[in-house]
Amino acid sequence: MTPTIGVFDSGFGGLTVLRALIHRLPQAQYAFLGDTARLPYGSKSRRTIARYAAQSARFLVREQGAEFLVIACNTASALALDAIQDAVEVPVLGVVEPGAAAARAASRTGDVLVMATDATVQSHAYAAACSAQGLRALEKACPLLVPLVEEGWTAHPVTAEVIRIYLDEVQADAAAKGFDADTLVLGCTHYPLLRPLIEAEAPRGMNVIDSAEAAAEAAVRLFNGRAAPAASEPTAETWIRCFATDSVEKFERIGSRFLDRPVGKVDLIDLGG
Amino acid sequence: MTPTIGVFDSGFGGLTVLRALIHRLPQAQYAFLGDTARLPYGSKSRRTIARYAAQSARFLVREQGAEFLVIACNTASALALDAIQDAVEVPVLGVVEPGAAAARAASRTGDVLVMATDATVQSHAYAAACSAQGLRALEKACPLLVPLVEEGWTAHPVTAEVIRIYLDEVQADAAAKGFDADTLVLGCTHYPLLRPLIEAEAPRGMNVIDSAEAAAEAAVRLFNGRAAPAASEPTAETWIRCFATDSVEKFERIGSRFLDRPVGKVDLIDLGG
Repeated sequence: MTPTIGVFDSGFGGLTVLRALIHRLPQAQYAFLGDTARLPYGSKSRRTIARYAAQSARFLVREQGAEFLVIACNTASALALDAIQDAVEVPVLGVVEPGAAAARAASRTGDVLVMATDATVQSHAYAAACSAQGLRALEKACPLLVPLVEEGWTAHPVTAEVIRIYLDEVQADAAAKGFDADTLVLGCTHYPLLRPLIEAEAPRGMNVIDSAEAAAEAAVRLFNGRAAPAASEPTAETWIRCFATDSVEKFERIGSRFLDRPVGKVDLIDLGG
Repeated sequence: MTPTIGVFDSGFGGLTVLRALIHRLPQAQYAFLGDTARLPYGSKSRRTIARYAAQSARFLVREQGAEFLVIACNTASALALDAIQDAVEVPVLGVVEPGAAAARAASRTGDVLVMATDATVQSHAYAAACSAQGLRALEKACPLLVPLVEEGWTAHPVTAEVIRIYLDEVQADAAAKGFDADTLVLGCTHYPLLRPLIEAEAPRGMNVIDSAEAAAEAAVRLFNGRAAPAASEPTAETWIRCFATDSVEKFERIGSRFLDRPVGKVDLIDLGG
């Protein structure tokens, strides 16, 4: 019997985390839930986000049998990890701590830059997680990057220009504050699709850390320590079920870009609200 | 006793409609509700949007005493106008019909272009309203424009470039379909803030119709026909109360750009869900 890993996001950006998980644990079963009826979480209060995220986590554990949860959403990881851990009885992993730990492993100067959504930056979750790792972090809100990814402009000159502007602004801020940053954390699960453009625009020698990859690696370590999955061969037939709370059409249409394979049929569910 | 006009949007873009109303009816009282906890409506189903919009309309009429409602949200106007009219006993006006009527008055060729959000375009509400006016409409989804306005890049070269790309795409499509468009409708209440850039990028001689202005003009006509407001002088002390269902901070911070005056304190309310 293969284990079921539940993966949760407010939308479908978290499919980049699922993609990274499948690459590492192809023999697992996956249940992915995008709470698309209530996205974006970024503009909502901590109390509201905690309530929504706890409902979503319970659905994955109680109705889909998930034995392990990955919160593939920076906002929910930043604001509601405790609430989710209280809501379910299985291990829960977010994306912020693994991102900070990967930055710790990569940085020699101890100073890192974090690109994220406005809500994640306002929570200062990365600054806190980096501080716990002995790093100084400078966080930069990049609110246009998610819409640019969703428009499909992942290799577009306009997107390159926007990334250049954001990087120029954060580097000017870093210089003014005496930061010697050598590592850049992509603190949003949409940003892996922009990694080639971001690497092209970042200063030479800057380490680029993908929090989706970091979370998948941490999940595999935690998972192996608990349940020792069978050492089966990777299979093309990884078992995935995708759920959304609304608007499955857009999910099916652009989700495959994030997952890098067809998402198949997405089931519509109702969590209330 | 001055009448109270209720103005409703899923966010704060509808403040551009409120601004246009205040300019025309400074002696009225206004209650504005942004259903920010549940925005954006654009990614949600018709049934969900209708439920949210009806709750919001009832709040404005029953709790704030609105005697007239303006639905300053293209998505709610396109998908839920009937549901709102069923939910309350006061006159209700949306933004789509007035935008189409203004296009009819402006166009000589009978062919118009409509820039709007993805959800509004998918509803084809403008195409239907324009068709009812004897116009042919070609609708263009412009999903990056709302994020660019909310980033504050309303006079930014990147925004000009994005507008140029969208206009080039819709004009190529128009040419392929044999449209001879002479009028461009701004079918989103965020777009009035981009009007100078859009006018600069549009072909010379193209009429630009602002659905926020058109809705305010239609509201004044309808309102004057019903309640004949006192012919008072415009006052600097227009009475406005603003409500939001979440995230009043962002509302207070950027709402003044849309309203073109301070929004003042925004009251947080709970509509459930």
